[in-house]
Parts: sequence; C-alpha cells; structure tokens
Amino acid sequence: MKIRYIIPGPISKTELGKKEVERRLGKLKKWASSETEVDITDVDYGPASIESMFEEYLSIQGTAEEVQKAEKEGYDAVIIGCFGDPGLDGLREITDMLVVGPAGVSMSMAVTLGHKFSVVTVTDTILAALEKLAWETGVYQKLASVRAIDIPVIELNKDHSRGVERMIEIGKKAVKEDRADVLVLGCMSMGFLDVAQKMMDELGVPVINPSQASLKLAEALISCNLSHSPLAYQIPPKIRSGKTVKELLLK
Amino acid sequence: MKIRYIIPGPISKTELGKKEVERRLGKLKKWASSETEVDITDVDYGPASIESMFEEYLSIQGTAEEVQKAEKEGYDAVIIGCFGDPGLDGLREITDMLVVGPAGVSMSMAVTLGHKFSVVTVTDTILAALEKLAWETGVYQKLASVRAIDIPVIELNKDHSRGVERMIEIGKKAVKEDRADVLVLGCMSMGFLDVAQKMMDELGVPVINPSQASLKLAEALISCNLSHSPLAYQIPPKIRSGKTVKELLLK
Amino acid sequence: MKIRYIIPGPISKTELGKKEVERRLGKLKKWASSETEVDITDVDYGPASIESMFEEYLSIQGTAEEVQKAEKEGYDAVIIGCFGDPGLDGLREITDMLVVGPAGVSMSMAVTLGHKFSVVTVTDTILAALEKLAWETGVYQKLASVRAIDIPVIELNKDHSRGVERMIEIGKKAVKEDRADVLVLGCMSMGFLDVAQKMMDELGVPVINPSQASLKLAEALISCNLSHSPLAYQIPPKIRSGKTVKELLLK
Amino acid sequence: MKIRYIIPGPISKTELGKKEVERRLGKLKKWASSETEVDITDVDYGPASIESMFEEYLSIQGTAEEVQKAEKEGYDAVIIGCFGDPGLDGLREITDMLVVGPAGVSMSMAVTLGHKFSVVTVTDTILAALEKLAWETGVYQKLASVRAIDIPVIELNKDHSRGVERMIEIGKKAVKEDRADVLVLGCMSMGFLDVAQKMMDELGVPVINPSQASLKLAEALISCNLSHSPLAYQIPPKIRSGKTVKELLLK
Amino acid sequence: MKIRYIIPGPISKTELGKKEVERRLGKLKKWASSETEVDITDVDYGPASIESMFEEYLSIQGTAEEVQKAEKEGYDAVIIGCFGDPGLDGLREITDMLVVGPAGVSMSMAVTLGHKFSVVTVTDTILAALEKLAWETGVYQKLASVRAIDIPVIELNKDHSRGVERMIEIGKKAVKEDRADVLVLGCMSMGFLDVAQKMMDELGVPVINPSQASLKLAEALISCNLSHSPLAYQIPPKIRSGKTVKELLLK
Amino acid sequence: MKIRYIIPGPISKTELGKKEVERRLGKLKKWASSETEVDITDVDYGPASIESMFEEYLSIQGTAEEVQKAEKEGYDAVIIGCFGDPGLDGLREITDMLVVGPAGVSMSMAVTLGHKFSVVTVTDTILAALEKLAWETGVYQKLASVRAIDIPVIELNKDHSRGVERMIEIGKKAVKEDRADVLVLGCMSMGFLDVAQKMMDELGVPVINPSQASLKLAEALISCNLSHSPLAYQIPPKIRSGKTVKELLLK
Repeated sequence: MKIRYIIPGPISKTELGKKEVERRLGKLKKWASSETEVDITDVDYGPASIESMFEEYLSIQGTAEEVQKAEKEGYDAVIIGCFGDPGLDGLREITDMLVVGPAGVSMSMAVTLGHKFSVVTVTDTILAALEKLAWETGVYQKLASVRAIDIPVIELNKDHSRGVERMIEIGKKAVKEDRADVLVLGCMSMGFLDVAQKMMDELGVPVINPSQASLKLAEALISCNLSHSPLAYQIPPKIRSGKTVKELLLK
Repeated sequence: MKIRYIIPGPISKTELGKKEVERRLGKLKKWASSETEVDITDVDYGPASIESMFEEYLSIQGTAEEVQKAEKEGYDAVIIGCFGDPGLDGLREITDMLVVGPAGVSMSMAVTLGHKFSVVTVTDTILAALEKLAWETGVYQKLASVRAIDIPVIELNKDHSRGVERMIEIGKKAVKEDRADVLVLGCMSMGFLDVAQKMMDELGVPVINPSQASLKLAEALISCNLSHSPLAYQIPPKIRSGKTVKELLLK
Repeated sequence: MKIRYIIPGPISKTELGKKEVERRLGKLKKWASSETEVDITDVDYGPASIESMFEEYLSIQGTAEEVQKAEKEGYDAVIIGCFGDPGLDGLREITDMLVVGPAGVSMSMAVTLGHKFSVVTVTDTILAALEKLAWETGVYQKLASVRAIDIPVIELNKDHSRGVERMIEIGKKAVKEDRADVLVLGCMSMGFLDVAQKMMDELGVPVINPSQASLKLAEALISCNLSHSPLAYQIPPKIRSGKTVKELLLK
Repeated sequence: MKIRYIIPGPISKTELGKKEVERRLGKLKKWASSETEVDITDVDYGPASIESMFEEYLSIQGTAEEVQKAEKEGYDAVIIGCFGDPGLDGLREITDMLVVGPAGVSMSMAVTLGHKFSVVTVTDTILAALEKLAWETGVYQKLASVRAIDIPVIELNKDHSRGVERMIEIGKKAVKEDRADVLVLGCMSMGFLDVAQKMMDELGVPVINPSQASLKLAEALISCNLSHSPLAYQIPPKIRSGKTVKELLLK
Repeated sequence: MKIRYIIPGPISKTELGKKEVERRLGKLKKWASSETEVDITDVDYGPASIESMFEEYLSIQGTAEEVQKAEKEGYDAVIIGCFGDPGLDGLREITDMLVVGPAGVSMSMAVTLGHKFSVVTVTDTILAALEKLAWETGVYQKLASVRAIDIPVIELNKDHSRGVERMIEIGKKAVKEDRADVLVLGCMSMGFLDVAQKMMDELGVPVINPSQASLKLAEALISCNLSHSPLAYQIPPKIRSGKTVKELLLK
Repeated sequence: MKIRYIIPGPISKTELGKKEVERRLGKLKKWASSETEVDITDVDYGPASIESMFEEYLSIQGTAEEVQKAEKEGYDAVIIGCFGDPGLDGLREITDMLVVGPAGVSMSMAVTLGHKFSVVTVTDTILAALEKLAWETGVYQKLASVRAIDIPVIELNKDHSRGVERMIEIGKKAVKEDRADVLVLGCMSMGFLDVAQKMMDELGVPVINPSQASLKLAEALISCNLSHSPLAYQIPPKIRSGKTVKELLLK
C-alpha cells in the first residue's frame, strides 16, 4: 500500500528547509509496516507555519492540490500533517482516496485505551479549536482537558529539549489534576521528537504520537479496504463535472 | 454606525451579476435602522458559488482581504454573507472589528423564542455541517432538525417561486414531525426572497431570516459597544507584527 | 416601536422609591434607538425584592397584570426586569406581544461572541437557578461558570462602588480559572450601574449588560417582526375564553 | 410519620367538590404503610385547574401557605399534588420539612427499573415543560419521550374510561415507537384512576403511578431521616427573619 | 413482603465471619417497616472481598444462584449487597422478582433532594466505575464528583473510627470544592457504620446510606407492585427453557 | 508481534466444534500483517453461546484464565472474541498485555470515517447493552442507532445466507432512516462471514468488520508500543500479590 504524508505548509521554503522534510520521512519509514510504501511532500504554497485558525484555512488550497495529485499517482491514503486536521471534511469531498486527519485518529485511538484523555499542545490560542475537534471526532465525552506547554511550534522546532521537558511537566498536570489516564500529543512537530516513549516511561500512562498513529491507522484502514464515507463527504457538483481545485477559484 | 455585508463569492463576475448585488443592497437598506449606514461588496476572487465545505474554505482568503479593507475604512462590523459562517473563527482573529456569522446569530436568536428550532436549508450535503455549526454556536441542545429542500443555491436564485413552495412544505414537516416551534432559513439567498413572513403566516411559528437577523444583531451589538472576544480569537503573531493576509501566503 | 420595561417588584413602594424607577428610565432612553419609544413601570404588588426562587414566583401574578395592560395599550414588547426571567414561559402564554427575559437574551447574545461565558451574579443562593436558566435557554454547553459577588441586591443598590469592585474581581476569576472569554452580568441592578464598560476595559473581554441587551434585542426582534412562538407557548383555555389574570384565581 | 397531600387548586370550590377530595384521601390511606398517618387538603385560593405554566405559577402562593401550616402542625412531609411540581424549589426554600414533587419522584423511580422511560400526560401544551422537569430532576438522559393523550384534565376527571383507553393506546406507542421500557403517568388525576395496574397487565412494562409513588418515596425518605438539601434550597433572608408567606407580598 | 439482602462475597468464610453477617442483619431489621420480613445471606462461593472490577465479575455467578433460590422461596425482592451493582442487568434477566442495585437506587434517591450529588467511596481505583454507574442509572448530569477516602474495604471493616473521620473530611471537600449539596456513601460497608447521620449533622446536607436506601426503596417499589422491566431485561432463551445458572456453564 | 484471539465460549465443545475454530483462524491469518503471528483459542469452560448479559458475565472467568496464560506465553495482545467486550475493564486489570475489545475498537474506528454510525447486530435484547458500550467507548455522540436483524447468533452460524440478506436490509434502513453514513457489524460471527465488503458494495458506505478491525488495531497499537492505561485499570491487590484467577475464588 502507498501512503503519502502531506505537510500543509511550504516548509522546504522556510529556514527549516528540505532537511526537516527528510528527517520526518526517516521517522515515517521507520514506523511503516513492511507492506507499506510511505513518502512525504510539503505543499507548493501556503502559510510559513500554522499558529492560528486563520493560517489553518490558508493551508487548505495548497493541500487540496497535493491530495488530487496523490490520488492521480495511485496512492491509497494521504495524511494531513497538521494536528488541526485543517479542511479535513472539505478535502474528503474532493477524493475517494482515504484522507486521514491526525487529531481525529489520535483521539479515537486514545478512547480505546482508558477512561479520559488529555491533549498536550503548543499554545493556549488553540485550546478551543482542539476541544471542537474532539467534538467533531465524536469523543468529546472522554476529553479530560487540553493543555498547552506555551511554546510556539516554531520555537519547539528549534529547541527540542526545552519542549520535551515542558511536555512531561504539563502531561503530569493533566494526569494529576484533570484525571487523564491517556495522553495525546497535540502537534505534529511533537510527533517527530521521540518524546512519546519518554513521557510513557515518566508518567506511566499511554502517550499517543499523532504522526505515528496516523500512519498506523491509515495502514489498518487500508487493510480493511475502508475509506472515509462517500455519503458523509459528497463530491461537490463542480468537482464531479471534472474541474480541478484551481479551476474552482473564480478571479 | 457603519456595517458592510460581504458576499464571499465573486458574484458580480457570475451570470447573476452586479444586479443581484444591488438587489440585495436594496433589502439591507430597507432593514437598516435610521442610525445605520449599510453597504455591500462581493469578494474579488473565490468560488463561483458555495455548494460544499471545500468551497467554503476556498472563500476565506478573499473574504479576509475584504475584512481588512473594511476595518481600514472605519466600519463597525462586517457580515459574512454565507450561512456556513465560513472561516468565522479565523476571520475574527485578524480584526478587532465585529465579524458576524449569520448561522450563529440566527440560531442564537431562535433559542430566545421557543423550545426547539429547525433549520431549512438547500441540499442534504450540508446537513452535518449545519449541525456542527449549531454545536459551535452552543445551541445544539435546542436543534430539532436540519432539513433540506433539495434545490441547489444556483437554481434557487433562478426560480424563486418553486423554492418558496418547497420551503413552506419542508418547514411544515419540521414543525409536525420534529416538533420545531421556531424555524431558521439556512441559506443567505433564502434571506433575500421575502419568504420568512410568508412562512410565518402559513405555519404559525416564528421564521428567522438570517440576512435581516445578522444586520439587526450587528446593530444591537454595536449599540452595546460589543465585539467578538479578543481572548477567544487571538491575533496570530504574524498578523500582529503587521503582515497582511496576502503576505501570510508563502509561495 | 413601543417597549415597556416592567420591574417585577413594587419598587416605588420601597425605600428606593420612584427616584430609582426614574433613574432606570433615564438609562433606557439613552440606550434606545431613535425609532423606539421606551418606558418603565413597576408592579402594583409583589415581593419587596427578589432574593430567592420563592420570591420570583410571588412576582409573577403582578407582572402578568402589567403584561396584559401593556398589550392593551399597544406595546410591541415588554421586558421582565429580573435576571431570573421569572415566569417567562407562563407570561408568554397570556399574550401575543413579545415578552423578553433578560437572562435568556443575554446568554444567547454571549454565545455569539466567544467560546465560553460566565455569569457574574449577586449571591450563591441562585447559582443553580441560573445554571438551569442556561439550560432552558439552550446554551448550557457554553456556560463556563456562574459566580457570585456575595453582595445581596439590596446592598448592591445602596453601595455601588463596593459592588463594582467585587464584580471586576469575580469576573477576573471567571476568566482565569474557568476559561470564560465572555461575561454576562447576572442581575438587573448591575445593568443600571455603568459597570459593563469598566469591566471590559479592565478584563479585556466582552461584558454583556442584561438591561441594555434586553432592550436592543427587543428592538432587533420587533424589526424582524418576530415574537415568541405561539406554538411553544400556547394560550391556556381559560385565557382564550376571555378571562383576565385576576379572574383565573378562585378564592 | 405524618404526611399531607396538598392539592394546589381549590378543588373543593369547583364542581368536583369535597367528594373528590375525599375519594383521593381514600386511595392515599389504602396505599399508606401502617406506620403512616396520611391526610389531604386543597388550597384556599388558586387556579380552578392547572392547564398551563401560567396556572402552575398562580398555584404557588396558596400552596406555600399550606406548606407553612403543615410544618407548624408537625408534619414530616408534604406532597405537591400536581405533576408539574409547581414551585418545588421555591417551596423547599420556606421549610425544613420534606417537600415532595411527584414528577421528580416518579421519574427518579423510573430510572431504577429499566433503560428508557416515557411519560404519558394529558395535553401537548405541556410536553416541553415535562421535558424540562426531566432535566431538572437529572434524568433527562433516560427520557424516551413525553406523549399526550389529548384529553384535558377536566374532561379526564369527568370521563375516566375514555381516558384509560387512550392512556393504554398512547403507552403502547411509547413502547413500540420510542423504545420506552418503563412508563410514568404524567398527571396526578391519572394517579387516582387505578389505571397503572391495568396498563402493566396490557403492556408488560412497569407503569409508575405518581400519586402512589410520591407517598411511598416520602415514607422511604422519612424513614432514612432524609429531607431536601438545606444547602440547595436556602431559606430567603425575609423568611429567616420570621415573615410569613403573606407578609412577603408588598401591596 | 419478603426481602433478602445478598452479600456477593462468601463473607462467613472470611475472618469477618458469621458475626458480621448477623450484625448486618440486625441493622436491616431495625430499618425494615413492620410489614417487611427481611433476612440476609452471603454467597456460597465468590471473591473474598471486592476491590476491583474483576472481582465484581467473579461474584456474579454465586449471586445468581442465590437469586434463583430466593425466587423459589417466594421472596419479593433481593438486594445485591455491593455498591458496584455487580451484574445487575444480567441478574435481572434470570428472574421476575425485583432485583435492587444499591448504587442505582441511592443515586436516583439523591437527585430528588438537591441539585448535585457526590459519592464518597473507598479507593480511587473505582472512581471511573462509579461514574459509569451514574450514567447507567441515568443521573450522570447531576453527579458533582466521586471521591475516595483511600481506605480499602477490608481495612474499613477493621477500623471504623478512622474511616468515619475520613468520610466526613472527604464529604466536606465534595461540598466545598465540587458544590455537591447531597452526598451518597459509595460502599455497602459504609452503610452499616451508622455514619450517615453523623455526616448530616456535621456537614448540613443529606447523606444517603445505600444499605438502608436499598431496603426502603425495595419496600416502596413492592408496595406499588413494581419490578424491573421485563422488556428491558429479557429472559435468555436457555433460562426460559428451564436451565439453572449452573447448567448454563459448559465445561 | 504475537496476537491471540480468544473465543469466550467453549465453542469446540459445541456442535460447531473445532472446525469452526479452525475456519476463523484461517480468516485471521489472511488478515494479519506479515509481521504478525496470530492464533486462536476458545475457553475451557463458559456459556455455550452468549445471548444475554448474564451469559456475558459467565464467560469472564474462563477468559481471564486464557488471558493470564497468553501473557505467560509472551503474547503482545489478546482479542476478546465477543462484540459485547465482556469483562473488558476487569480483564485489563489482571494483565499489562494489551487486551482488545472489538466493540470499542470498531466504534472508535467508525467515528474517524464519517458523521454518524449505526451498529447492525443480532437480536433486540442487546440494543441497550450496545448503546451502553458506545457510551463506555466515549463515542455515544456519533451513534445513529443500533438495529437488530432478529436472528440469534446460533442460527446465524447455521444459515449464513439468510443472515447476510437481513444485514443488508437492516443496514439500508440505518442509512435511510437514521442517517448513518458508516456501519459497524455488531457480532463477531458476522465478522467471519465475508459480508462487510458485500454490504459496502450494496450500500455505498464503509462497513466495519469487528473481527478484522480488532486484529488491525491491535497491530497498530503494538507498533506504537501502546497498551491499555495501567492507571485506568489498576491491578487489584490480590492479583498484585501473586494470586491466580482461580485462587481469587473462595469456595
């Protein structure tokens, strides 16, 4: 099976550069099952980084072009590489190929392992958005809390060790004060930091890495021949009549 | 006070043309209080019409440019002229000026008038999206149902009378079968059809016109010196540092 | 349009007297749109002040007489001047004229402006009652908390400055500890204290004044030709057959 | 133990008369445990019958006087003889003696016997009010439906057999269509009709008679030395300082 | 009426011995109405004590044999003497005789007395299980919290006074910090300690003793000729065809 | 990785026999990833088949012995082969090895693929139990309905084709009438019938096979080094001190 991980920002045009893209691909390959061919791409255009709902929305058009490209190239699934699952419902409308949103996948995995889960994320500007995602995913009832480490994504990518320290500290609070018994890392950059295992060892509860979880659930779904519901996400008339994403935009 | 109604599709470039934009302005002026200066604009670029979640997302960037423009021109509020409230949370992040979403406003008005409300909308592809909006607005508990007349927006704008007939028929079903005692028209084109009063007369329940309701609630909020919460919708770092919407997009 | 504000206690017979009624009318006139004619009345008989659910119930009969009177005099709406919305459903049964409850209106306005709201009220004896009102209004899902300043209405009306100080203090707690991003003043006396703006300046979140909000939403609803649903609040048989409120009471 | 059943309308002044009061006392005595002394009274003044929320509110003052009287006479509990539990929270504020609301009691008993219950009541004007009561009681989650037989209380008291027939018919619908597996009779007049057993025999599910259930739960609570929570229903300052119900009313 | 209390562990084979069984019977007899014949039994085999969900499950088979025995001996009801209500739905499937679960009964009684209740239980390993029971009972909405005294059942039975002290301490926290206005003792051993009255005196809120409450509600239900719903708990085919509990087990 | 599928009834002692066990193993091997070693066992003793909650409870002890055995033999996970997830929380208490419940896993997978899911199961006696499982799993909010084909497991295993026909018929109803856009097969026997793909082709929505889904999610979780939360499911003192399942039972 073929799975592509799409980074919804043009990360190779930023200072992180192609090196970071390659680094992430390395992790994905390590995680993939032997039956899986995994690769990675970033979008051609989009926000430099996603720090707000507004930048999430800005990322959707570029991602959509990559989704249509992957489908043409015969992929079985794509993973939207942002924990906000930006545009997930819209992107599912434009393809039959499975589109995976990391937040939905990680939170749905969390509920199978305990009574209550907390999400540990970057900044408190997105707490409400992540609570909304828990509702959209259908697992709001088991959400103990969303907590922020108060370090923006950009800085997290620069100074890993301080981030890891804070993640353990905040994760501990979620367990003690909010009675979480499962944790979810609420940011894809966190997912490429090898921190989940460290947190499990420290805190004694399962910690879900959304990057790895997305890949493994994509594999599981493809094995079962499952994709998102075409009834839930119906193809818009203009797309059905053959228009591409770019042609939808009237200028 | 100054209020601008933004149509999030470049409607004046479609066959409906500037005439339709003028027609809608006429209604808005009729509804406005004598203290209000209201005008209308459509976006420069965006989807020809919004028939899917994907097209909602495509509309946000063009709308954001109009939002920033209106703020610079000293407006007190803008209304997003699509019942999906596309990008509402994101658009509120980029301005202090009140941004009004018609769905949120109409549904919050509905709950003050009865026990349960239903939304009558165009097609069944957006039922789930409107249920989600009811949850985001915080009034899901009083939602009796969302029902579709099964006529796309484009056709509704061409043949008003058939649309009106179906709206009454479907509204009646919501009252009888779903026990709604208040109705909300779930599409902005419906709001410019003079159908709300007709439905009230036929069905004996309040019917909320989202176009008019948005304008009147905007006036009420401005009078109370209220805007959306800057704590709930925090300005993203890049916008705070002075970037425009266009500059956020890295190509 | 003509709107009457009904104080459900015979306040002009208490030590606050007619002066307080006049003072409140002054505020209402200042808030009213130029198209609105607003006046005020207190009831002929009822509890001296409302400090409990029991006194809320005692206030309904006197209020009902004022409602019927206002309807006969051609008013478009009445506002029940107590944040408990005492008897709202019952009072709506006895008239077609719009009856506005300040709690319902203020909370429904709050949900359009942020993710979570808190109510700041007088004493902790009514916390549960206000939570129930949030549920009845249909917005319980977005209620962050109800918090009390622990100053009874009577004292609040005597010593404004201490009350204002406590309201800011408690409002700050709601924002910090309960994650509210919108506040609602949960007492009509608070609404006539010019404190909402002061709190907004101090706390940086929208603060809804229920007295002003009731007036402005009443105007908005009347403009849209909307009243409460006659299907939700059906006229009781004895009233329909022409009995007055007084005649319903068998002694 | 001593328990008094208070009919919140002056029924002995209506055409039903003292005979009906006596008839009901007969039933209560039959149901009472040998340790219980039960009697009955109607109020001195109030609505002739309760067919609306408004009339519920009108009944509270007269009931309150009877509550205070019963407390003075050394009763252990009073039962409010109307399924709307009119004024229950307010009445509990004015006494330490247990005040029982039949709806709350019957619905809380229903949840111990099955998965979902339905309430069979008189007319559809009170469906929303009974749903609200299920929420107030805290058992909304298990409410399958509220259904009306569409026979007003007054007629039900005149023609018992037609009422019983309809109750069985509507109960059957609740079981078949709403998946109720327990039923509650949602009107106190129904409780004195000997219909619960008949319905159980016909429908094969438990049917709760609110009149009997109120008496039996009152006995159970008194045996356990339990009354309503004085923290939940705090005594209003004016009552605490010794005022009677009548003295609260300023004219 | 005849009611049997079944202790789901073979307590008379443990060091507590028959003496403890007799002690509990003494309490039950004191609580019973004069119309009630109450006795007690422990199971023949099962877990020595119940400190986990796993041990709850282990207790069901032995309890089932006692249930079938009691039915044959003409009992009107049995009470499962463990606050986890272990196997309640399954045990109700094998008999028409009323089976009472103390947790369900106590929590349903709690909701009739206040706005929010807390459960005070033994150890924090069962907090989630008791929250689940509140949901199963249908009263989750009014659950303020479940709190543990952190003393295992076994030790509680050895050193009563330390347990009582902690129960008062933890109950106070539930009232102060979680806003509970009613308390439920969440362990049957607590129910035989005479602590409920002591807590009421100290804390000023109703405290429900599950052991006594189960007995009194069983009496109330039997008086009303009510048992659990045969539609909700249908008899399994093999039991209907006459098999005993033991014969269901294939070895 | 090593995964064992445990059938919680002694199926090889029934007329289905070892042949059926072997047939199921064949399917599991076909579904397994090349990195997975899967095998199957049935329990030594337990109910012949599971048609009720009571039989679910009877199955737990035998299953627990198999769980402890698998852990000793170095397995990474076991799957409880009954859609009721019988004893899942209890079984997780007695081992660190991942224990997978098919209902929880399948429903959590369903929520990632659409807006609402329905469960298609065998008989209507277990509808309430499956709704409870949806709540326990934390996904109740997205449950459209549970519907039964009204064919007992035993007959389903004898006459596959009639079962398949009914499953398609009932699945269609769930989509049409309950607005489900994803389906879950609610019985493990259904999972070994090759019907999921057939239903997808007929109905155009994803259909989740719980047998395959359990295996694939177990693989995904093990790859991520995740097991159920030891904080959520704490080891009981007696087990921690080294007792086996059998030794817990006092006779």
